[in-house]
Amino acid sequence: MRGAVICAPGDVRVEERENPAIVAPTDAIIRVSAMCECGSDLWDYRGSNDATQPTPMGHEYAGVVTEIGGEVKNIAVGDFVGGSFFASDNTCQICEAGYQSRCAHAEYVGANGAQSEYLRVPLADGTLVATPGMPDDDLTPSLLAASDVLGTGWSGAVAVEAGPGRTVAVVGDGAVGLLAVLAAKQRGAERIIAMSRHASRQKLALEFGATDIVAERGDEGVARIKELTGGYGAHSVVEAVGTQESMTQAIRSTRAGGHVRFLGVAHGVELPGEELFFAEVDLLGGPAPVRRFLPELIQLIWDRTIDPASVFDLTPPLDQAEEGYKAMDERRAVKTLLKP
Amino acid sequence: MRGAVICAPGDVRVEERENPAIVAPTDAIIRVSAMCECGSDLWDYRGSNDATQPTPMGHEYAGVVTEIGGEVKNIAVGDFVGGSFFASDNTCQICEAGYQSRCAHAEYVGANGAQSEYLRVPLADGTLVATPGMPDDDLTPSLLAASDVLGTGWSGAVAVEAGPGRTVAVVGDGAVGLLAVLAAKQRGAERIIAMSRHASRQKLALEFGATDIVAERGDEGVARIKELTGGYGAHSVVEAVGTQESMTQAIRSTRAGGHVRFLGVAHGVELPGEELFFAEVDLLGGPAPVRRFLPELIQLIWDRTIDPASVFDLTPPLDQAEEGYKAMDERRAVKTLLKP
Repeated sequence: MRGAVICAPGDVRVEERENPAIVAPTDAIIRVSAMCECGSDLWDYRGSNDATQPTPMGHEYAGVVTEIGGEVKNIAVGDFVGGSFFASDNTCQICEAGYQSRCAHAEYVGANGAQSEYLRVPLADGTLVATPGMPDDDLTPSLLAASDVLGTGWSGAVAVEAGPGRTVAVVGDGAVGLLAVLAAKQRGAERIIAMSRHASRQKLALEFGATDIVAERGDEGVARIKELTGGYGAHSVVEAVGTQESMTQAIRSTRAGGHVRFLGVAHGVELPGEELFFAEVDLLGGPAPVRRFLPELIQLIWDRTIDPASVFDLTPPLDQAEEGYKAMDERRAVKTLLKP
Repeated sequence: MRGAVICAPGDVRVEERENPAIVAPTDAIIRVSAMCECGSDLWDYRGSNDATQPTPMGHEYAGVVTEIGGEVKNIAVGDFVGGSFFASDNTCQICEAGYQSRCAHAEYVGANGAQSEYLRVPLADGTLVATPGMPDDDLTPSLLAASDVLGTGWSGAVAVEAGPGRTVAVVGDGAVGLLAVLAAKQRGAERIIAMSRHASRQKLALEFGATDIVAERGDEGVARIKELTGGYGAHSVVEAVGTQESMTQAIRSTRAGGHVRFLGVAHGVELPGEELFFAEVDLLGGPAPVRRFLPELIQLIWDRTIDPASVFDLTPPLDQAEEGYKAMDERRAVKTLLKP
């Protein structure tokens, strides 16, 4: 089969890779209908981690089950499925508490490289969720979005308790941030402030339900949030970047007793304990437990209640994976969807 | 009146100070029945902050109201009152959300020096809570404890959702940590692990309801907590020290999806963003919103349901304030209560 691998910073190739096979009896193999490129991959693309050997790329997927291991019960060959980027047993105490991405038996699905024609998904029963039937083609991008960017943005809105009467601010105008706006809207937040300085992303944020746009960053951005919230700061802040500046901006934009959910993998960030103490904000980071929300999200997509697919503004074939990353790196694209 | 002031590290004196007077119409003056010395004062006592002039000491108090400003409605002269170390209006949005110590109009009561015969308490209606009647003398220490150490420990147990089915670990065996144990017990936690290596404090922790004692610290302490919790870590960890080591120990002792409440004022602490991300623990720091819990705590004390007073193991007269700090600094005393 064909699959994308990263060989060095900026060097993503689509090569012939071996077809995946069932390894454990809890595995499933899916034929990937659509896959995408993640903002978090850009850290590798830009060289934050030194790739020493060609490494499979991609952890977002949706597709049709072609094979299952002998112990798989809930998923059948022929099902169309969505799934999280972390495989989870969905039965351990961590999963039961709703933190499936940190399951006691979590495996990173991305290690198998979802940007390929076929993908092996471990712990299929606890990881995959089948759609009610075979989806219309136009639903595939939204179902793909559920596997990470939608699920992650949604988890952010849930964690910060976005809802009626709440002011939610979103730091970061990538796909996750934009879909946190959609999630906050869907959950009834009163005011949703998107922090963005890019016209096309501002437009998308407004379409997804943002009530206010703040283009300022850093201390100026914080001051603007305070101004918009009677001096208090937002109740709820979703951080979807992962830098020192964005984390600081998020924490300082939040009122005491408010919530910050940081969704961006933190890179080179150090949080001063004393500032965090006196900020008195509830801070939760971590890979989003997408699996917790998948059944609900798939239903909302199936019912066409939400349409997250417009974050995909570039949809080349798999063979052009590298160009997809380049466009995201240069911020010419919000999110690249690859067709197999 | 006589009152304690710190003149330099290690130099606490009891001097003649001017009697406080009503400044704002929302003030009250109380005659302090009992006051105490806080672990957080030890940072000053040890020289973390350079005192450049004699500074009044103490922020924990209970006593009888002797004078009120013209706008005070809920508190009357003659009332016996407890109060938080932060004055709060108890009406702003932050107070309404239960974070009174970060009230939009918060004032640090300790700035007036509670280790004195009389104390001015700003925003009396929003800060003080009257007892149902004049308490028996033996209740005074417990009511005093409510003003900070009990209220703070209690807030920790609430924030980490200590309750039935939960394993709670407490890092720090000072008065706040010990009273977090009492609070966790009172709130029905299934298992309460006190991290302490001092025999007398271990004994007190067990009396307050600890089910397990862990004497190990750092990575060894974390390993022991994991061992006691089936490899998962505790659901709920209360941190009551404020150092890099204790914060790290607290975060690493918590399972993904669990809660950490850090109650110790963080000194020189830097939290690495990436570790915090992958820990995926809910982290809340800050001065405890004691006022939120005061009505409940006062009632529990009044009904003799809880008895936090045994944290006071040294009870000299006010004149011996310095000896009280010395004993706490040398860990000869858990907590010093001063009699006026």
